[in-house]
Amino acid sequence: MDLPQDEARRRLGTSAVARLATISPAGRPHIVPITFALDGDRIYSAVDFKPKRTAQLQRLRNIRADPHVAVLADHYAGDWSRLWWVRADGQATVIDQPADMADPLRLLEERYPQYRERPPAGPMVCVLVQHWTGWAAARS
Amino acid sequence: MDLPQDEARRRLGTSAVARLATISPAGRPHIVPITFALDGDRIYSAVDFKPKRTAQLQRLRNIRADPHVAVLADHYAGDWSRLWWVRADGQATVIDQPADMADPLRLLEERYPQYRERPPAGPMVCVLVQHWTGWAAARS
Repeated sequence: MDLPQDEARRRLGTSAVARLATISPAGRPHIVPITFALDGDRIYSAVDFKPKRTAQLQRLRNIRADPHVAVLADHYAGDWSRLWWVRADGQATVIDQPADMADPLRLLEERYPQYRERPPAGPMVCVLVQHWTGWAAARS
Repeated sequence: MDLPQDEARRRLGTSAVARLATISPAGRPHIVPITFALDGDRIYSAVDFKPKRTAQLQRLRNIRADPHVAVLADHYAGDWSRLWWVRADGQATVIDQPADMADPLRLLEERYPQYRERPPAGPMVCVLVQHWTGWAAARS
């Protein structure tokens, strides 16, 4: 069954990990896992799944060239009646000014103890969600 | 640390679920969770996470218009030393002839008991992987 927008948003907010899909300047799809914090229709994530190298910033180059992104959270279980997923389509911006990172960083620190011990240096990505899509195999 | 290609392939093969990123004819990223079977550098998946409706076939329309796709499997844990992910970049084709679906279907049935009870009608997607990328926080 399709999930109402509020329920889709709620389920994404309970997920510890999601995936960010972007499009490269060459027009290729790119996808990485992200930790994130949800604030209304905004999804914040920091670049830290890998030590920082040029190659890791592909998602930032992509967003700067084309802001359209999709974020997916999904739940898998051997019992397929428990499957669900949520997709958030929107536009992303790169946050690289320390003053702009303070509030998102606080949200991330609330969710992940690792960030409290070692705050990500940034940059960060903010996705403004324009469309929520969700599906669940069953109601609960 | 970056994962060697063989290890990246192996880890994808152990995952029960992955995500398929495609690009829509309008140039937007699209992403859905997939069940799949891996055969060498080929990833097979069937359309069945949702009952079949026009909207569900977005991934097929996208692939027919632009075959470039990315597939991601990731492992999340509260202990971030156990994080890893694998991305497979390649080109996809839609398989809609029953004779061509027989072998991939057998691979899917080996992995998922649900498919043995109720085989997916198809179509199926075959991704020929051209590039493996993988990362793990630690060696084990």
